[in-house]
Formats: sequence, structure tokens, C-alpha cells
Amino acid sequence: MNILAIGDVVGSVGCRFLREKLPPLKKLKAVNLVIANGENSADGNGLTPSSVRYLLDSGVDALTSGNHSFRRKESYDTYDECEQLLRPANFPAGAPGRGYFVYDMGRTQVGILNLMGTVYMDPLDNPFFTADALLNDTPKITVVDFHAEATGEKRSMGYYLDGRVSALWGTHTHVQTADECVLPKGTGYISDLGMTGTVESVLGVQPELTIHKMKTQMPVRFDLVQDGPCKMDCCLFEIDDATGRCRSAERLELR
Amino acid sequence: MNILAIGDVVGSVGCRFLREKLPPLKKLKAVNLVIANGENSADGNGLTPSSVRYLLDSGVDALTSGNHSFRRKESYDTYDECEQLLRPANFPAGAPGRGYFVYDMGRTQVGILNLMGTVYMDPLDNPFFTADALLNDTPKITVVDFHAEATGEKRSMGYYLDGRVSALWGTHTHVQTADECVLPKGTGYISDLGMTGTVESVLGVQPELTIHKMKTQMPVRFDLVQDGPCKMDCCLFEIDDATGRCRSAERLELR
Amino acid sequence: MNILAIGDVVGSVGCRFLREKLPPLKKLKAVNLVIANGENSADGNGLTPSSVRYLLDSGVDALTSGNHSFRRKESYDTYDECEQLLRPANFPAGAPGRGYFVYDMGRTQVGILNLMGTVYMDPLDNPFFTADALLNDTPKITVVDFHAEATGEKRSMGYYLDGRVSALWGTHTHVQTADECVLPKGTGYISDLGMTGTVESVLGVQPELTIHKMKTQMPVRFDLVQDGPCKMDCCLFEIDDATGRCRSAERLELR
Amino acid sequence: MNILAIGDVVGSVGCRFLREKLPPLKKLKAVNLVIANGENSADGNGLTPSSVRYLLDSGVDALTSGNHSFRRKESYDTYDECEQLLRPANFPAGAPGRGYFVYDMGRTQVGILNLMGTVYMDPLDNPFFTADALLNDTPKITVVDFHAEATGEKRSMGYYLDGRVSALWGTHTHVQTADECVLPKGTGYISDLGMTGTVESVLGVQPELTIHKMKTQMPVRFDLVQDGPCKMDCCLFEIDDATGRCRSAERLELR
Ligand SMILES: [Fe+2]
Ligand SMILES: [Fe+2]
Ligand SMILES: [Fe+2]
Ligand SMILES: [Fe+2]
Ligand SMILES: [Fe+2]
Ligand SMILES: [Fe+2]
Ligand SMILES: [Fe+2]
Ligand SMILES: [Fe+2]
Repeated sequence: MNILAIGDVVGSVGCRFLREKLPPLKKLKAVNLVIANGENSADGNGLTPSSVRYLLDSGVDALTSGNHSFRRKESYDTYDECEQLLRPANFPAGAPGRGYFVYDMGRTQVGILNLMGTVYMDPLDNPFFTADALLNDTPKITVVDFHAEATGEKRSMGYYLDGRVSALWGTHTHVQTADECVLPKGTGYISDLGMTGTVESVLGVQPELTIHKMKTQMPVRFDLVQDGPCKMDCCLFEIDDATGRCRSAERLELR
Repeated sequence: MNILAIGDVVGSVGCRFLREKLPPLKKLKAVNLVIANGENSADGNGLTPSSVRYLLDSGVDALTSGNHSFRRKESYDTYDECEQLLRPANFPAGAPGRGYFVYDMGRTQVGILNLMGTVYMDPLDNPFFTADALLNDTPKITVVDFHAEATGEKRSMGYYLDGRVSALWGTHTHVQTADECVLPKGTGYISDLGMTGTVESVLGVQPELTIHKMKTQMPVRFDLVQDGPCKMDCCLFEIDDATGRCRSAERLELR
Repeated sequence: MNILAIGDVVGSVGCRFLREKLPPLKKLKAVNLVIANGENSADGNGLTPSSVRYLLDSGVDALTSGNHSFRRKESYDTYDECEQLLRPANFPAGAPGRGYFVYDMGRTQVGILNLMGTVYMDPLDNPFFTADALLNDTPKITVVDFHAEATGEKRSMGYYLDGRVSALWGTHTHVQTADECVLPKGTGYISDLGMTGTVESVLGVQPELTIHKMKTQMPVRFDLVQDGPCKMDCCLFEIDDATGRCRSAERLELR
Repeated sequence: MNILAIGDVVGSVGCRFLREKLPPLKKLKAVNLVIANGENSADGNGLTPSSVRYLLDSGVDALTSGNHSFRRKESYDTYDECEQLLRPANFPAGAPGRGYFVYDMGRTQVGILNLMGTVYMDPLDNPFFTADALLNDTPKITVVDFHAEATGEKRSMGYYLDGRVSALWGTHTHVQTADECVLPKGTGYISDLGMTGTVESVLGVQPELTIHKMKTQMPVRFDLVQDGPCKMDCCLFEIDDATGRCRSAERLELR
């Protein structure tokens, strides 16, 4: 089975680009399942019922999220109602929605787990223990989106779950890393998928705005770059259906 | 001119691997100048007079550093005495050594600037203003090692200095990013070079130790992985001598 | 001379309480100069032209601020136009307004300096160096509001400026500390003045909201407590006019 | 019942001062139970078997700790063996020792809970949920040491446990706060007890060292002030034995 994981889709400009590029890529690479991080899919950050709908209608099978999961109140019901939309499982009990979901593909089931790091981020529950709690009765093929900042935490989680999940990818930094690999015990891994949106930007945002913020420490509204070339950062994991092990991890940057 | 920038060299195992791989790479790619980040070149972190000497004797022309610059007291004199060894220029006035240096290659001079980020890091001087102060009377070819954590800060600095320096690379996360490019105004750029050391590790450290730290929050000594395959993460910037603009940025991971 | 320093005035409820209590206190204690931190004087945080006007009309002579200085765009002109309103002096160059001001009392001048810490706060310029730069040609009587989080940074600044200023008080935590004193070289000191606003609150905010935030890590709007008993936390520094030294620091909590 | 809670005892100089002042204070105030935070009782930080023994032999009945609990390997067995020594209960499962303990006073039992905050501190388990889990079958009289940095988190926990525990005090900042009170539902409260050790210091440390750290951002060993006047910061909670409610909270600073 070929699972395509897509980095944070940023704004409507990123959503439109995904809709354009995903269908041919699925054909080209015989993709069976598509998972994208949608935490920034709404213009102005977070996600909305309509950005979720748009991405699912564009060929994405499941959506994960992260520290911007709950930025928009209008999305809370969607977390509860739409089981293909996940938020990090290690949010405190009582958060809308869920962080783990089994995608039923008929012949096969695929477990999808969304976790968030705690280094330089919010003090959620310890993701290592949350992983232990949720990964004991999972389908043979199970994958993880670990939304985290620090490379040390991401690679630690990779080794921690190596051999226990089919693939684990990082999201959140919006910059793709080049350390894709299959870890020693068979888990496909990449520290960060990157982002889907405009190329000439700072994580999707207009560079002059982020520079202004850092030079002045004043409040700045982070408007997105609206035109110019786009890219879709992603990684394709080829999974052995019989064993659940990853055969290869192919990093992609679609322009 | 071809400038090779090498990611954080970790421990004696990383130093030895660099000594083995650098000479042939220099020949292969006609490298004119080699700059490596040496902040973790000593076993047990930081750098020492002997790890500095070892790297310079291995074909490295200049060394930069970062948040671990001053971890070892025995290195302070080396910062003062060895002008090829830099520490971030935005340390408060009075720190040992310097953060900017002009490497004299005879026919050509190359300015080398070392800066450190302040997002999720120590509160050094604002690196954007330090860059402004130091980059007004520099050689046509000037390059920057921006030692920083957050991708937003790194890419902001890239755009900020685009057209003002020949190349800017990030270091510190020990994971190579795949966003190497030439920015619109001619500056070669990559968010992080990665590291030089053992492949199956968490930034050089034994994964079971970093996992133990994150699962227990107890103090843990971070011993390095001592054997297994190594890699040297680096990026080659081809600079136009006449204009100082970057023609191409080639990301490399030498095994 | 008796200088009264008043802790962060929170919301219109805090402003009204100050207007009620300040005039009699000034008479009671023969106060010559009143300085209050106004960074939260507007409902919904930050300050506005009208909250500034209200406080100055209530008997406050000068206002300092902090990390919420620039929360409201409508206040930027006020920083430029009203010299009795300060923001931390170690904001990067170019910020609206100023961080140091000499209050002219006719016979006497009083220097007022506003600084902000960088531990657990924004990476402003190093406040120790900013203090050095601004405190070399100041009136005999000069006082400092150091808006900071960490007690270590606050007490360090206290000792650093001991003997160089007449008084230094901390603000920002909204909880009054009990370490008021005259430091060995004559500077009046307290780590935090506390706040002016509702007593049964979490820094002015409704406790159920801050608890909800910490239990859920979801976005929460921090509405203020609007009724119930109020207090005005402050500290009275008695300064020797001839030497500028502090004779006594009297901590007060007015109900 | 009168319970005396004593702020972080810093170094052997603090331990000796406590041994001198505690016995007469116990008599003077008819103290029934003494709880001190011992996380810095060893010179060079953390605690050791001998600093624990020294404090227990000096009249302290139980010791709590915090972010420095596990600084010294030689103390780990003591956490396991000495039930009067607590560490924060919200450390991940598997940490040495325990975070909750029932002190048996014969006629009465007193529950003692140690928690740690997560704002600006390590990402331990959410202390609000840990409190819920541990506070459901406790003695009528139960008290809490909440070792935390941010006043917002401390006061939130105070209101959260108001009416559920007899008293809750904060530790960690080493500066006593002046907000001692009985909360509306009967819980005695203070945001921070302060420290036990030298007066003219930055949290016990020599001011020139902490200033040097903040001016240079270089590594500095934090040696303690060894002489000069000392103080013991503490708070006395008078608890109604029949109801477990707090009748009064008296803040003390013993010189
Ligand atoms: Fe994102
Ligand atoms: Fe994110
Ligand atoms: Fe490094
Ligand atoms: Fe580093
Ligand atoms: Fe405030
Ligand atoms: Fe503040
Ligand atoms: Fe402490
Ligand atoms: Fe502490």
C-alpha cells in the first residue's frame, strides 16, 4: 500500500494548489491513501468546516492538525462530527474530536494517530505515553503525524515507535527535512513533511511581515502570500501489506 | 568560487568522518573554501582547542559555532587567538572572540558572519540589527551561518539578507532541510545544513537516552552514538566572483 | 520626596478604583509623584488614549507599560505624543514613544526609566545594557519600572542598579511581593508591585476562564472579573532629595 | 491545627539558619506540623541524603521539592525510602519516590501533595488532572505545595482547589508574595512562600554571578552567598480540625 502524507496546507492558495496537483500524483504513484495536515488550511489560520470539506473533496482521505487545531470556534463541531479530521491525541481529555481513527479501506484498515510535541510548544500530555496507550490494539498498518517543533523530540519519537508503526512523519515547521528513511526496525520516517503553499514566503506568510515582527517585536498580522509559484511538500511511504513494514520513503516536492 | 558549508560536526566520531570525506569532496567539487559549524565537535559537547585544531587540520578553513560556543572554559582563549574560529556576533559585547571575520584568499576576500537566533534560544542581541551593523562594508563575497531553531526566524533572515550576502545557511537543528535554493535577489539559502556524525542517532546522541529524558523528565547524560554509519551533511554554494551572487545551491549528504 | 509606584492597573474596574483611592492616599502620605503601570488599563488588555487620559486625570503623573504596550494600534500615537506615557526602553529602535523621560517638578527633576526583562519574555534588547546607556546623565532622583517575569532577573537588576537609581520596582506578575527593602547602596526595591483591580481574580481575569485554559489548552478569551472587592497594590519610596538615596520603601495594599 | 510551610531552603547556610529558628518558632506559634521545600538544600543545588536528614532532624516533618528534585543521583534512593520526602506528583510514572503522602499524627491524618507547574517549566503531566486524581479520598486536612513559576498558574490552581484542600502554597520563585489569604471556600493560600537563606542575594546566589550571566549569556557557576544576614520565609496556616477549613494564613519572614 502506498500512503501519501502531505505537509501543512496553508490557506486557500495552498488548498487550490493541492486540488490541482493531487489527482495526477495519485495516479502517477498509485497512491492508496492520502493524509494531509490541515491546521492552517483556512485563510487567517486554523481550519474551518469549508476548508476541511474542500480538502476532503480534493482527494485527501484524512486530515490531521496541531497547535492551530482549535483556533476557530466554528470548527469544533466538525472535529466532533467528521471522523476523518483528527487533532493531536494528547490534548487533555474533553477536547473536541479525537486523535486516533481507523480508516476502513475495505480489505485493509489503517490506523491514523495524530500527536503533538511538548518541547517549545503547549504543555499537552506526554506524547510518548499517549502513543503507548493508543498503539496496543491497532491495525497492522498504522501511521503517525507528530506535530512538533524540536528535531530532538521528533527523531526520539521516530526511534521510540520504530517497529511499532508503519510510518511516522513530522509536521509544524513548514520546512521539509531531508532525513527521510526507513528506520532500523521498519518504520518509514521523516522529521518534517514541509508545507503546501507559496514558495517565496516565510511558512506561507509574507516575508516583510515576519521580518517586521522580528525587528520590532510589535504585534503584526501575518497575511499570506497570495501569488507566485506554489509547491506541495509530501512524502510517499510504501508499506508492505502483509507485515505493515515500510519498504521505502520517498520525499517529494511538487511544483 | 565554490564555498562548502558543513553542518554541526558532532564529537570525535564526526570529526574523524569529516577528515576522511572532506579531501576527496573538495577535489570532486573544486571547493575553494570550507566552513563548518564546530559547536559540538568535542565529545561531551562544546569545542576544545584540540577539536578546533583537528578540524582546521582536516581541511576546514573556518569554524562557526552557536549556543554551545562557550560550554568549555578551555576554549575561551582559542576564540580570542584563532581568528578562523567564530562565535555568534550577537553575543553581548565582551564575549571572547568575534563573530565576523574576513578570510583572505589572496586574490579574493570572503566575509564570514556568524549569527544566532533568539526564538526558543538565549536572549542575545537582535540578530537582524547585528547583521545590519556588520554588513555595510563587507567584501563582495560574504556568507552567513545563522544558528537558530525556528524555521520562521531562519527564513525571515534569509529574505532579510537576500541580495546583501552571497549565501546564508542555518545550523543548530542537526537535521538537514530540503529547501536549498537561490533566493530572488541572488542569495544562496538553506534553512539547516544538518549534521556530521552518526546516522542512527538523535542529533548524534543515543536514542534510548533522549527517549529516556522525554519519558521521565529526569537528568540524563547525553552520550553520543560511537559506531555505525556516519554522514556529512553539507551544502555547496557556487558564487559568481564578479558579482558575489549565488549561482546555485547544491545540498549534499555524504555517506 | 515621596514617590508612589502603583502596580498594573487592570481594566476600567481597576481604573475606577484607583480614581477613588489615589487622592486620599496622596494626602495621607504626602505623595509628591505618582507613577503607575498602565499596560492593562483598557478592558480587553493593552491601553487606549482614553484609559491613559483617565489615569492621568485621576492623579497619576506618569505611566509605564510592558509586554502589552503595543496591543492596541489606537494607542501608538499616544506613545508618540504624550511624554508622560512610557514603554520599555529596550524595545528595538523605531518603536513608538520612548522609554525614558525626565519629569520636571520645577525645583526638582525626576528621571523615569521603563525596562522589560527577557527571561520568559520577548527577546528585546538586553535591559542591563540599555540601563547602562540611559543612566549616565540622569537627574539625582531617577526611578525604574522593570517589567519582568523571573524573580532572578528582577533581583539581579536591583543589585545591578543599586546605588545608581533612587528606586527600582518590578511589575508584570500582578502579584505583590513582600521583599520591599532599601538595597545596600541606597536603592529602594521591590520585586513586584502587584496589581490594581479585583481581589478575587487571577491577575484580574475570571478564575474559571484561566482554569479552563490550563485544563484544556484551548483558546479562551480572558474576560475580567467585573465586581467584588478591589485593591490597589503599590509601594511608597521616600527619597532623600539631597542625595537621591532611598530612605524607606513602604509596601501598601489598599482595599 | 497549625501547619507551618517553609519556602525553599537554600544551601547549608539556609539549613543551619532553619535549625536555629524553627524550634523557637514552633513553640511561639504552637505549630503542629512543619513542611519545608528542600529542593535546593544541598550546596550546589538539589538535595542529598544528608541535607534531607539534617532538615528532618531540625524539626521539619515533611519535605517537598520541585524542578531540582532529581538533580543529584545520590538522592534517588532517599526518595524511594523516605516517605516524608516528596517530589511533584505529576512527574511521569516511574520517577523515584512519590508525590502524595499521608502524615499520621495519631489522632489526625494530614495529606500532603506536591505538584509542579508546566508554564515556563518542564512539560510534566497536567497538574490540574493530577490533583483531581489524587484528591478524591484524602484526609479532611490536606495541603498542597505547588512548585510553579507563573502567578497565573498558581492562582488558578488556588481557585481550582479552593474548598477541596485546607491550604495551598506556591514555591519556586524564592521571593515571598504578599497575597496570603483564605480563599472564598476556605482554602488557605499564598502564591509563593519565598526562601530560607541569605537576604542579600539573588535567590541565594551571589548577585555578581547572576548579573554576569545575564550580561554575558556565558555559562556561570551559581555559587551561594555564604555570609550576611539570613531569613526564613514561611506561612502559618491555622486549620479547623473539624472541618479542614483554613481559619487564617499568616505570612512570616523570620530574620
Ligand atoms: Fe502549520
Ligand atoms: Fe503547527
Ligand atoms: Fe549543534
Ligand atoms: Fe546549537
Ligand atoms: Fe500586566
Ligand atoms: Fe505584563
Ligand atoms: Fe528552589
Ligand atoms: Fe524550583
